[in-house]
Amino acid sequence: MSDYTLHCFAQSGNAYKVALMLELSGADWTPQWVDFFNGASRSPEFRETVNEMGEIPVLDHKGTRLTQSGVILDYLTSELGTFGWKNEEERREVLRWILFDNHKLTSYTATLRFLRMFAKTGETEVTAWLEGRAKGAYAVLDAHLNGRSFTVGDRPTIADFSLCGYLFWPDEIGIDFSAYPNINRWLDAIRALPGWKSPYDLMPGHPLPAKS
Amino acid sequence: MSDYTLHCFAQSGNAYKVALMLELSGADWTPQWVDFFNGASRSPEFRETVNEMGEIPVLDHKGTRLTQSGVILDYLTSELGTFGWKNEEERREVLRWILFDNHKLTSYTATLRFLRMFAKTGETEVTAWLEGRAKGAYAVLDAHLNGRSFTVGDRPTIADFSLCGYLFWPDEIGIDFSAYPNINRWLDAIRALPGWKSPYDLMPGHPLPAKS
Repeated sequence: MSDYTLHCFAQSGNAYKVALMLELSGADWTPQWVDFFNGASRSPEFRETVNEMGEIPVLDHKGTRLTQSGVILDYLTSELGTFGWKNEEERREVLRWILFDNHKLTSYTATLRFLRMFAKTGETEVTAWLEGRAKGAYAVLDAHLNGRSFTVGDRPTIADFSLCGYLFWPDEIGIDFSAYPNINRWLDAIRALPGWKSPYDLMPGHPLPAKS
Repeated sequence: MSDYTLHCFAQSGNAYKVALMLELSGADWTPQWVDFFNGASRSPEFRETVNEMGEIPVLDHKGTRLTQSGVILDYLTSELGTFGWKNEEERREVLRWILFDNHKLTSYTATLRFLRMFAKTGETEVTAWLEGRAKGAYAVLDAHLNGRSFTVGDRPTIADFSLCGYLFWPDEIGIDFSAYPNINRWLDAIRALPGWKSPYDLMPGHPLPAKS
């Protein structure tokens, strides 16, 4: 049995944040597929026994069960000794970007992609509104990355892994990142990290079975 | 000059999270009003000199400038020694709920209130969608608070201050919290904390001037 078990599915950028951290840290981990698209993570049983928030990812490690990607990433920096901070000031800066990601970047990006790619709602008032909010977040990140290799302290940290969770799927989100040259360059730098894999190569469940 | 200066405005629930922490901790703090409704926090000058994320709250303390309410609350638990955690497990549980708040609860709640109360868009596809998402988050919190006085560890922590940031404005959000009896009871328990004040009593800028 592996040290770490990650409850995940290939289409989850939030799970990818953790999978990428585990993989790039050389951790001994196994993905455990969750049938999100048939509601497994939102069932009463899942909420009772796995995660009351009804969300993925969930990480099991030596009897400890953790949820929320930001908490798991924080935990893994200390367990694995990788991609963390050098001092309190850097710790706060990492947390600041993880919170920004959760509140403003991933929240709108993930939902926009979900509506377009999986719910297939077509273009609606909601997708237009989400796209506007997501682009606002990309502009903030792009400006921050101007002259920087990574988000905090000029080396990769869990802040980068959180922020990039959904951004290797520009076609699925329906966003052209060429308007954000610093984001593009930064994504290339993450792709170049030894051991990097795309979400669909790192977690099970892709492609989705065709609907009958 | 006060120990702490909080850049804020009365209508900001995100600023209220920090103002409530400072007030209930008996800190020496002064609010500094930001003209959000005329775009002050989104101006290029504000982004360059105060907060690149273009957001409120911002806290100044002895030459340190902090942004993101979750980071500021974390900082204040150690500076003030109040409303924090007893051990690492509790610290992670507090962080988990702050992340949930940022991603799922405040994000949808604040935006729904903004569209209804300030942008006055009326009921649209977007407000309907946001209301559905917000109610999903309230259901998770309500279930968690069943049998609990507070969110973590049976005493008030910064997790409560984060989650309650917008919830003392049910009329402005347009949500009836009587459907969430545990949330209602928990909000009463926060109101009963010594020194509690409502957002409009704690920060400057209410009421808004009438539009000419």
